[in-house]
Amino acid sequence: MTNQETLHDFIQQHFDEMVDIRRYLHQHPELSFEEEHTPAFIADYHEKLGHSVQSGVGGRGVVAILKGKQPGPRIALRADFDALPIHDEKDVPYRSKVDGKMHACGHDAHTASLLVLAKALNAMKDQLKGDVVFLHQFAEEVAPGGAKPMIEAGCLEGVDVVYGTHLWSTSEVGTVEYQEQAAMAAADRFKIKVQGNGGHGAHPHTTRDAVLIGAKITDALHHIVSRTVDPMASAVISVGRFEAINAFNVIADSAELEGTVRTFDPEIQQLVRTEMERVTTGIAETYGASATFEYIPGYPAVINHPEHAEIVRKVAASTKSVKAVSHVPPQMAGEDFGYYIQEKPGAFFFTGARHPDWSVAYPHHHPKFDIDERAMITSADMLGNLVLETMGLRDPS
Amino acid sequence: MTNQETLHDFIQQHFDEMVDIRRYLHQHPELSFEEEHTPAFIADYHEKLGHSVQSGVGGRGVVAILKGKQPGPRIALRADFDALPIHDEKDVPYRSKVDGKMHACGHDAHTASLLVLAKALNAMKDQLKGDVVFLHQFAEEVAPGGAKPMIEAGCLEGVDVVYGTHLWSTSEVGTVEYQEQAAMAAADRFKIKVQGNGGHGAHPHTTRDAVLIGAKITDALHHIVSRTVDPMASAVISVGRFEAINAFNVIADSAELEGTVRTFDPEIQQLVRTEMERVTTGIAETYGASATFEYIPGYPAVINHPEHAEIVRKVAASTKSVKAVSHVPPQMAGEDFGYYIQEKPGAFFFTGARHPDWSVAYPHHHPKFDIDERAMITSADMLGNLVLETMGLRDPS
Amino acid sequence: MTNQETLHDFIQQHFDEMVDIRRYLHQHPELSFEEEHTPAFIADYHEKLGHSVQSGVGGRGVVAILKGKQPGPRIALRADFDALPIHDEKDVPYRSKVDGKMHACGHDAHTASLLVLAKALNAMKDQLKGDVVFLHQFAEEVAPGGAKPMIEAGCLEGVDVVYGTHLWSTSEVGTVEYQEQAAMAAADRFKIKVQGNGGHGAHPHTTRDAVLIGAKITDALHHIVSRTVDPMASAVISVGRFEAINAFNVIADSAELEGTVRTFDPEIQQLVRTEMERVTTGIAETYGASATFEYIPGYPAVINHPEHAEIVRKVAASTKSVKAVSHVPPQMAGEDFGYYIQEKPGAFFFTGARHPDWSVAYPHHHPKFDIDERAMITSADMLGNLVLETMGLRDPS
Amino acid sequence: MTNQETLHDFIQQHFDEMVDIRRYLHQHPELSFEEEHTPAFIADYHEKLGHSVQSGVGGRGVVAILKGKQPGPRIALRADFDALPIHDEKDVPYRSKVDGKMHACGHDAHTASLLVLAKALNAMKDQLKGDVVFLHQFAEEVAPGGAKPMIEAGCLEGVDVVYGTHLWSTSEVGTVEYQEQAAMAAADRFKIKVQGNGGHGAHPHTTRDAVLIGAKITDALHHIVSRTVDPMASAVISVGRFEAINAFNVIADSAELEGTVRTFDPEIQQLVRTEMERVTTGIAETYGASATFEYIPGYPAVINHPEHAEIVRKVAASTKSVKAVSHVPPQMAGEDFGYYIQEKPGAFFFTGARHPDWSVAYPHHHPKFDIDERAMITSADMLGNLVLETMGLRDPS
Repeated sequence: MTNQETLHDFIQQHFDEMVDIRRYLHQHPELSFEEEHTPAFIADYHEKLGHSVQSGVGGRGVVAILKGKQPGPRIALRADFDALPIHDEKDVPYRSKVDGKMHACGHDAHTASLLVLAKALNAMKDQLKGDVVFLHQFAEEVAPGGAKPMIEAGCLEGVDVVYGTHLWSTSEVGTVEYQEQAAMAAADRFKIKVQGNGGHGAHPHTTRDAVLIGAKITDALHHIVSRTVDPMASAVISVGRFEAINAFNVIADSAELEGTVRTFDPEIQQLVRTEMERVTTGIAETYGASATFEYIPGYPAVINHPEHAEIVRKVAASTKSVKAVSHVPPQMAGEDFGYYIQEKPGAFFFTGARHPDWSVAYPHHHPKFDIDERAMITSADMLGNLVLETMGLRDPS
Repeated sequence: MTNQETLHDFIQQHFDEMVDIRRYLHQHPELSFEEEHTPAFIADYHEKLGHSVQSGVGGRGVVAILKGKQPGPRIALRADFDALPIHDEKDVPYRSKVDGKMHACGHDAHTASLLVLAKALNAMKDQLKGDVVFLHQFAEEVAPGGAKPMIEAGCLEGVDVVYGTHLWSTSEVGTVEYQEQAAMAAADRFKIKVQGNGGHGAHPHTTRDAVLIGAKITDALHHIVSRTVDPMASAVISVGRFEAINAFNVIADSAELEGTVRTFDPEIQQLVRTEMERVTTGIAETYGASATFEYIPGYPAVINHPEHAEIVRKVAASTKSVKAVSHVPPQMAGEDFGYYIQEKPGAFFFTGARHPDWSVAYPHHHPKFDIDERAMITSADMLGNLVLETMGLRDPS
Repeated sequence: MTNQETLHDFIQQHFDEMVDIRRYLHQHPELSFEEEHTPAFIADYHEKLGHSVQSGVGGRGVVAILKGKQPGPRIALRADFDALPIHDEKDVPYRSKVDGKMHACGHDAHTASLLVLAKALNAMKDQLKGDVVFLHQFAEEVAPGGAKPMIEAGCLEGVDVVYGTHLWSTSEVGTVEYQEQAAMAAADRFKIKVQGNGGHGAHPHTTRDAVLIGAKITDALHHIVSRTVDPMASAVISVGRFEAINAFNVIADSAELEGTVRTFDPEIQQLVRTEMERVTTGIAETYGASATFEYIPGYPAVINHPEHAEIVRKVAASTKSVKAVSHVPPQMAGEDFGYYIQEKPGAFFFTGARHPDWSVAYPHHHPKFDIDERAMITSADMLGNLVLETMGLRDPS
Repeated sequence: MTNQETLHDFIQQHFDEMVDIRRYLHQHPELSFEEEHTPAFIADYHEKLGHSVQSGVGGRGVVAILKGKQPGPRIALRADFDALPIHDEKDVPYRSKVDGKMHACGHDAHTASLLVLAKALNAMKDQLKGDVVFLHQFAEEVAPGGAKPMIEAGCLEGVDVVYGTHLWSTSEVGTVEYQEQAAMAAADRFKIKVQGNGGHGAHPHTTRDAVLIGAKITDALHHIVSRTVDPMASAVISVGRFEAINAFNVIADSAELEGTVRTFDPEIQQLVRTEMERVTTGIAETYGASATFEYIPGYPAVINHPEHAEIVRKVAASTKSVKAVSHVPPQMAGEDFGYYIQEKPGAFFFTGARHPDWSVAYPHHHPKFDIDERAMITSADMLGNLVLETMGLRDPS
């Protein structure tokens, strides 16, 4: 029996435990930056396995280390564990027990999958050549997120490579999706306040109309992507909020705009930001008003290291619980996994979690979001095989 | 003593009564369409003078008729009597006794002035050649207003000419301001709802962005005045409200705009309305969305009959309590007096009501609005002299 | 016989001479700033009448003075005499004899009418109380025009009042049209050059697209009239030329815009100019380019003195050859008569010149432009009566 | 000696012939669709080698076939041979002898390189397993180009795979640049005519201003790339020409716009075209005018088959005259090679042609454009090795 088969069988045999853990966490969700019981549960699990465990890493993170018998590379695997302020509308026995909170993104399953993988690798520790670092991250959902403080607290020290995955509710279970570089976008936020000079709707000449100026800024922002960004690069600027609430016969004194920017390349990100600020203040001043421009950087893009993305692809192609491997375009959504692979080599991939029989797959963050729990087998199998591959322990089959 | 002197002396001698009435009404304001005690008070006053009185005209209006001894023209004089939903912040003994309601536009003084004028003309009734119709109008402040239903109820039947005035808190007491034609603008309202197709801020291509489309409509509306309206005509289009409240990372599904249109000429008004509708739906469709356009006509413009405006000017120039006569440009504010002179010849003018010693004259609708009460003498004197002039009773002086 | 009748009869009797002069000039048109024979002809005519004549005034102007026997006001009457670079397409015996030049605006008739009026007033010189100054102006058609240098050369010295008229080919003969103030607009010109940064059409991000920026400036200019100019005032901004000629696959390096501005009020004119410059440079800089803005003031608005406009109206109402007097809105076209009444009291009016039987009245500057020559009687009669009125010589009729 | 070495040595030894041919063609350039001597020269060359030759293919193309001794795949190699209407400004002995015509894109070198390669492969024909089809294409520079009619005339019949290359004057000689898919963009053209309603600059309300409407269309077109195209896809819309030439005081009756569109994906291309047409007519109608929209598709994108792009990469990595292999982003320029690989598997790549000592490398289509002629060795070596690889004749080295 190859090492891969040993690993797979262990995971398969512990599927019930995985489901139990996932459902327990699912019923007891904790919001970002408020996690207490979840990290305690995780730490306890690792302690029972005899792993070296550090809690409160960077705030509320848990880092556990499994040392292999033989020397070798140090491989970090990351799973996040925070929930969302969404009310669970599913009609299932394991529904959230907390009103208005819910694991609507699958982080419960990330955690359950990684814990059982830890047990599996622990069972193989005599063969392991190197160490495995289990990064249980808090607060992925809310910027500035937990990854950054955990890294600052040293969670990547000595680490040679880091892998992570996200269950994906709209791709069928058994699928692994990889991207050679730009897996997920940098997702930033901006706020604009236009300060005009209000007055009576009948006397425009005594005013500087903040609604018109806000409209002109909105318009001008949308020329940046089409004219200033390299057409071969990708960028999105969207104004989601335009707020100037006044009586109908009043000319607005001020208007507020808020929106998001998505980019993959830090140079493009900087260019867009600079241009946005110039366009915003330029238009406001052109029309005799002023405007403030605030740019709140979110998570950086998740840019895989191509060699490690290639390892993901190859490992996926020869991992038992993976039925299909596919290439995906970059995702415009954001993730703070990007911080880890800014520091260390590694890659992020997507693990399909849609039940083949479901006609509707509710998207992430939907009140009826759910997964095919067998996806946890796939993700544990994949991450485990990435460890074996890195340690040179995958046998020819 | 000329008739003019007789009239003036009577009014002057009854100034205290005028002040008493005005202050009584000032302390007991009643909102538009809710007036009860005020019309009853007015009807009672006229009944005591022996005038033929009709209450509940067109809803809550009061029409009183003073018949002169000799035949002649029938002259209508109009005063409105409703108050505003504004909290009185003045520190005076006659302050409003009703929380959140206030005579902040001077309609109390319009009423007091007309009532005492009625008494004065009644005292001269033996000389009068013709009749005087006192139009006490409810609900001027809130469209659709009281003028229209009062006219529909017949208040202008048999009337040959109609005059009205508005006390003006920012012009000094003793001043009469006239306009040969367009005294006040038509003040209309519009609402636009843009129906796009919302989505995630990162995926503009799957959406039709209602914020951008709303911005483009705002922009396009402002080209109507500059390019489609005759530069010799006057028109204003102002968007006061732009409302698309969404999370920053969402693309708006819909947006609402609301604003006002001011015009003097019904043809221009119709042109603007038609163009606005075409531009709104045209832009929305151009960008793959749809939009509804609602136009709510307000009061028509107050367009004086030039001959009667000229009579106002001439009479003002030879009326004792008038110190100065001046020409004013059209006012962009609205008034439902326009309905009367759509039906009958006549004119509307402004009577200065600012105390010469006041350093600040609070504008109409301000919580500290007040008047120099001597303005009531001027307005009564002016309207009375217009009656005498029309009846041919002004003696050479 | 009243003085008015004497004047009228003289003019009427000399109608043939008027026609002869007009037709002679019509056949020998001279362009603005190139007039030679025309001023010589005029000077000769006045000299034969014994008037004091000065030629070459301010360049090519002719000023003749008729001194009345008795002292009194000095009244200036102005007629322009330049032709246009238009080819005469009329089929009449008095058609222009010069290819490509034509009296297509009626200045020939202005001159003929004023010369015969000079003869008429000369015949009455013993009764005249005051002097008449005949201002024969060159170069009205081309800015900077002849009025300004003639004034600078002293043609208005000692003058108390100045009148002028323009024959108007689209109003019926016998009509006089007056305007109490703004008779004709200030007509200015502007040029904008956008300097972007050109490049290949496939690589917008390496450029600053002058076509887009020119489009944005065009757009922004049109918000000035609708939002920054008082809606009670009149202003027009029009971009007539947009020129960026490039291959289809090139991004424009520069673009040129040119257009006109029309206003009546110098404050509005200044406001528009200032805003235009700010908007132009502001938009260019906002989009990373630069722009030059050149503003070339044309003739000032023709703003009548209201008292003298009223005199025109009254005199017209009692002048024999005037059949109808009407009020006209301000004309958006330009005239350098405005310079005279910036210096001295006076007024400008329009004299109808359309033949009642003509189904089509060709507008001024049209190659088939012509007039009903009887209009010269009206204009001479009107200007003559204005002289009589000013000298107090109009008898009660 | 391996087959690769044999091939390379032959090419190297015939470098002088290559140079001679190239310089001969360089001195005798013929424009697209006017080629006569060039195809005759090519046909003659192949005939002398004993190849089966067909002239006038699809118009002016030449197709020559070299049959290998043994059966195997049929491999097509393409070189274009037309010149440009540019005046040669180089100061070299082999300068163009035809005024205003020049090989400013390197097609002369493409041809010389392919001819000598034909001779080289001919010399190895006993070993060849399969056939080589030499596609000498006319009219690449001017749409609709020569590729399409040559294909329609059957030039790809029986062909299994097709390769082509373009010398690239800005990349150093010895470099091969590959792209796994989108090598070059689809380059289309559009023309817009706005039909407004012109008039005098002073009377905008009587017009529909074609300059403003053209500006609004320009603006609206630029929102398509930013809002309607998937941010992960690439598209460019550029308006290169905006033409509305009028006197400054005229409002434009019409305006013309012309520009280019670049895309890689036919679906995006179709989407952009459809949206452009809708936006153009929608904006024109919104502003009361009309517009015609003409879209002239140019060459399709050059989309490599990924497996064949990978073969290019691998072959380049082991071809003697290639010093460096690099990956390039898609080029926004156009090429009609795309037609061939729409029909058959294959790939297109770039062969560096910049002399290492040149401080300035003039770009393609520049009057001083030139190449390092050794690039012809690289391109012949590359195409020859692709033939060997496809026939399974590359020996292990």
